[in-house]
Amino acid sequence: MKQESVQTPNITVRTNGYGLLDSISSPADVRKLRLDQLPELCSDIRRYLIDNLSVNPGHFASSMGAVEIIVALHYVYNTPTDHLFWDVGHQAYAHKILTGRKEAFTTQRKKGGISGFPSPLESEYDTFVTGHASNSISAALGRAIADRNTPGLENNKTVAVIGDASISGGLAFEGLNNVANNPNNLLIILNDNEMSIDANVGGLHSYLSDLSTSARYNKWRAKLYNAFRNKGVVTEKGKGRIQRFANSVKSLVSGKQNIFEGLNIRYFGPFDGHDVIKIVKILTDIKNMQTPRLLHLNTIKGKGYGPAEKNPAKWHAPGLFDPETGEKICNDSSDSPLPWQEVFGRTLVELAAKDDRVMGVTAAMPSGTSISRMLAEYPERTFDVGISEGHAVTFSAGLATGGKRPFTAIYSTFLQRAYDNIVNDVCIQGLPVTLCIDRAGIVGEDGVTHHGLLDIAYLRCIPNLLVAAPADEETLRNLMLTSLNSDGPMAIRYPRGKATTKEWKTEMKVLEIGKGRVYAEEESSDVAILTVGPALHDAVKAKKILEEDGVKTDIYDMIWVKPLDTSLLKKITDSHKLIITVEDGVSTGGFGSAVTEWCRDNNSSVTIKTLGAPDSWVSHGTVSELKHDCGYDSDGIVKTVRSAISVLKQ
Amino acid sequence: MKQESVQTPNITVRTNGYGLLDSISSPADVRKLRLDQLPELCSDIRRYLIDNLSVNPGHFASSMGAVEIIVALHYVYNTPTDHLFWDVGHQAYAHKILTGRKEAFTTQRKKGGISGFPSPLESEYDTFVTGHASNSISAALGRAIADRNTPGLENNKTVAVIGDASISGGLAFEGLNNVANNPNNLLIILNDNEMSIDANVGGLHSYLSDLSTSARYNKWRAKLYNAFRNKGVVTEKGKGRIQRFANSVKSLVSGKQNIFEGLNIRYFGPFDGHDVIKIVKILTDIKNMQTPRLLHLNTIKGKGYGPAEKNPAKWHAPGLFDPETGEKICNDSSDSPLPWQEVFGRTLVELAAKDDRVMGVTAAMPSGTSISRMLAEYPERTFDVGISEGHAVTFSAGLATGGKRPFTAIYSTFLQRAYDNIVNDVCIQGLPVTLCIDRAGIVGEDGVTHHGLLDIAYLRCIPNLLVAAPADEETLRNLMLTSLNSDGPMAIRYPRGKATTKEWKTEMKVLEIGKGRVYAEEESSDVAILTVGPALHDAVKAKKILEEDGVKTDIYDMIWVKPLDTSLLKKITDSHKLIITVEDGVSTGGFGSAVTEWCRDNNSSVTIKTLGAPDSWVSHGTVSELKHDCGYDSDGIVKTVRSAISVLKQ
Repeated sequence: MKQESVQTPNITVRTNGYGLLDSISSPADVRKLRLDQLPELCSDIRRYLIDNLSVNPGHFASSMGAVEIIVALHYVYNTPTDHLFWDVGHQAYAHKILTGRKEAFTTQRKKGGISGFPSPLESEYDTFVTGHASNSISAALGRAIADRNTPGLENNKTVAVIGDASISGGLAFEGLNNVANNPNNLLIILNDNEMSIDANVGGLHSYLSDLSTSARYNKWRAKLYNAFRNKGVVTEKGKGRIQRFANSVKSLVSGKQNIFEGLNIRYFGPFDGHDVIKIVKILTDIKNMQTPRLLHLNTIKGKGYGPAEKNPAKWHAPGLFDPETGEKICNDSSDSPLPWQEVFGRTLVELAAKDDRVMGVTAAMPSGTSISRMLAEYPERTFDVGISEGHAVTFSAGLATGGKRPFTAIYSTFLQRAYDNIVNDVCIQGLPVTLCIDRAGIVGEDGVTHHGLLDIAYLRCIPNLLVAAPADEETLRNLMLTSLNSDGPMAIRYPRGKATTKEWKTEMKVLEIGKGRVYAEEESSDVAILTVGPALHDAVKAKKILEEDGVKTDIYDMIWVKPLDTSLLKKITDSHKLIITVEDGVSTGGFGSAVTEWCRDNNSSVTIKTLGAPDSWVSHGTVSELKHDCGYDSDGIVKTVRSAISVLKQ
Repeated sequence: MKQESVQTPNITVRTNGYGLLDSISSPADVRKLRLDQLPELCSDIRRYLIDNLSVNPGHFASSMGAVEIIVALHYVYNTPTDHLFWDVGHQAYAHKILTGRKEAFTTQRKKGGISGFPSPLESEYDTFVTGHASNSISAALGRAIADRNTPGLENNKTVAVIGDASISGGLAFEGLNNVANNPNNLLIILNDNEMSIDANVGGLHSYLSDLSTSARYNKWRAKLYNAFRNKGVVTEKGKGRIQRFANSVKSLVSGKQNIFEGLNIRYFGPFDGHDVIKIVKILTDIKNMQTPRLLHLNTIKGKGYGPAEKNPAKWHAPGLFDPETGEKICNDSSDSPLPWQEVFGRTLVELAAKDDRVMGVTAAMPSGTSISRMLAEYPERTFDVGISEGHAVTFSAGLATGGKRPFTAIYSTFLQRAYDNIVNDVCIQGLPVTLCIDRAGIVGEDGVTHHGLLDIAYLRCIPNLLVAAPADEETLRNLMLTSLNSDGPMAIRYPRGKATTKEWKTEMKVLEIGKGRVYAEEESSDVAILTVGPALHDAVKAKKILEEDGVKTDIYDMIWVKPLDTSLLKKITDSHKLIITVEDGVSTGGFGSAVTEWCRDNNSSVTIKTLGAPDSWVSHGTVSELKHDCGYDSDGIVKTVRSAISVLKQ
């Protein structure tokens, strides 16, 4: 991949001048270093991360915390013959830098550049796409068992590295529960920084925290571990029994029990995850064990950069910043509109103030979704359930059976984890849960695993569910009130980024369900553009451009994907020759398909062109770059109308 | 609900003559009994279950095992003011019988009769629809917190009853992990029969099993529990510490740790789940505790019926049987075709014999999916991962990264739990996992939570995924071989029940991807019927009926939902005036929509009618009854063609 130079007014990113890192072009170079050089390498990597990420924003704090783990793994293991699975791969920047992508790292998350997450398409060192949390144990177990069953590969090692937040996801538990079922040599490293993006939640979190902080236990542990090592039992037979005894003692001393041992996974830890020399020693000790095992390492999110250590949540993905001062560089003018989620969060607080049935639910994203606003005002009615989207939805259904009105805010791409919960626990029962689908549509730099392009298609087929998308703040607010006044489930989808106006705080009113609106209508126009969501604004731009061609277009903001406004559709199809549908989602089975199905069932012969995401995976880049490439920004609409009109005229 | 009488040649089901049960028309009547009468009531319920289920088949063994738990709960708790959530509600037959549905129970799972699962539409005692495993803890937690936050309802109690197989699902863990986060009084009862439908798997299972069987521990436990009771500490302050100490001792003695205590959930047990008097006493003791807690009860699947106790897996849902002898009444003639899953299972063994990359994966359904055949032949290459569909799919993706070719067999409705895993772990990476979607389409008596009607719609929108449906055994086998020879993911969907011919063992050949077939074509026919899957056979029947009207129809077995056979479609749309699409799935966004999208994008003006499941929930009944009601059996096709033709002629 070609190196790009990256500049902001005062900073140029170098890709050399980073001490030992300059000599590293692959993990083999790491393995040439002396053990005592590793702390220096870690320090060099951190400087490189700080310099790079200050001008080319990315996931900062978690990457800073995982440096020693990554260096130690590549030092001890024979990558890529041995396989590393990074749960929520944005912790793995140092891994990218050490595996031949030091220069390419300056392009990360940019169009044409490398991904912000591990990607097998990009490097043989990236074993698996890990953009969604909690999948590493299951995937790594599959790989460990595949290798064990392949002649010649039996001795390959497999390691899954999972954070303490990811491990709370149900998928991780399903993985843990299956680890000991079949012979394998899987090593799970628990990278425990006591943080999700926001603060961590759940019984498991307090459990891990207690395991890590019990001073009495740590004393015991150190003595026992040294005793075991001195007697050579760590790598000998009988260590299982001794380890179990140690954990029983630990459980007595700390007042806590070892969950992993309960699942027949040998447990080691907790140890300091920033002592790279010690980690290397431990990994070397346990590397050749033939049983599944878990190594618990305590790390600090943002380690090595003061401002990030102090406020790791804010430094999760900080954007541009000055590496010297830690000051964030904000290009926002105070004139710009609020983000969609901010309007959602503030509106939710207004609704909660008026109606005490309103509850807020989020799965580990209180700040991302702005549910944090309700959490601050009404902590007893707001629930951050951690990374567990399925639970978030079923828990909301439970709240609804008790007369509550949960607003459950989840990113579109993560809502895929709650599909069965939406179907069975919400929609079959017709419970009044409002699914507030954040980051719907293209999200930009986070790329393929994070775009929210499927939700219209996967939700539209579910009976009982209303699906709507606001084009502006006023409609978002009205839809939220409408859902509160409705008796069944409703999904409201809105995108990442800024909304449309500074005047967002309109008076809320209940909308008629399934009623779209005429946005712009002219006499004798042959072309109707039908949009849902903020695609409306692309249609408006396109209309202006087409006017210069002398082409008149009417614009309809349909608002509702389901139910469709069929009386408006009847009027539109009767009075136009060409319909263009535009949506920020896949065309296959999406809003355009809903319109097409209606036309088919109502014998309309109008010509329909549907614009939306293609039936292929969309990569990373800015939102506008990607929408343009997908052909559904204003340019795409203009092009489609021009070409369709020329055909109609023939 | 009106009572129906149920008869088989030699047996008539009575709804009275069952001792104490005759006097029970609601839980209030149960609460009028003396404690020492409860064992007799349990025995009466069991006789009623045996007599009823022998002539009106249902889920037998799990229901027999839960009788004492159900009686004790209704005796101690003030239902329906207190709420019971039944995980995998088919264990809850006794609950239905005690809550005013003793007579209606003779209609269970029949069209117009009561559901085989809890249903709030049916009774105020049914708090939640629980057809899919593992949702009870999350839903009950929502209800407990809703009540706690509602003035006047703060003292309502909430109980979730979950089996040891269900608790291995990731959703249950997400629930457990969140139970202790907020103040609530949730009681979780772990109904531990050491069985899923098939044998249970996973670390948690062996953990529970060890907890239950450790004789040394049980001695300790009894002593400690009695000591606590004598000192009155079970319901007093300080019990937490003592309980924790007891569990630490237990963990030392049994060599195991208490997972639930690790999650800050107080743990009691294990106790005998068939000692109804003891369960009542324990429930009474812990009923008013204000903290989340788990009561572990050991039960025997099939309890009280010898043949079922001996072979609980075979008696999970045994069909008709003679209650006296335990002999199953089988109406199958040896001339009938094999079930689809049996053909799948046998074919998988053939493929595994020829290609050692082939792996088999199932989520707790080895017999249901017939993966059991491969498990018997190639145990080291076959994986039953327990109730954890998400893990099954991600684990399969991991196997595929190691060059293996997993065939992952999951029921359509349960595959909804693995949606994100299909999207992220399989399809984004384009990994060669074959999703073998069993029970696709209407499944009949299990009803609304078990129909597999959404899969075409929710899979069709995912890039990279091929989706096919065979109409016969030969095509199923060919599709399996085709997938093995393909380099990306493929979904093959097939229904519950018998396939089409006794001559299933055809020689396999690789099919061309996206190539449909002409099944029947005549000269100058205006009508084309396009099917995927066994809907073909309904089309063939319809064709014969329509021939009698003098209406000629052509039939196309499209095989592939994605990619569509576009050259065949071009030919069909050019040469017909009317197209009927037929699928065993929802019309919204399904196969018919795919055909419609193609016609739209290719300027075809052919009239299209799509037949499939409606945009509303389909209840229970026989498969043929329900297909008829949905209008996509042969009658529905005939009716649609006749009506469309009359319009075309106008």
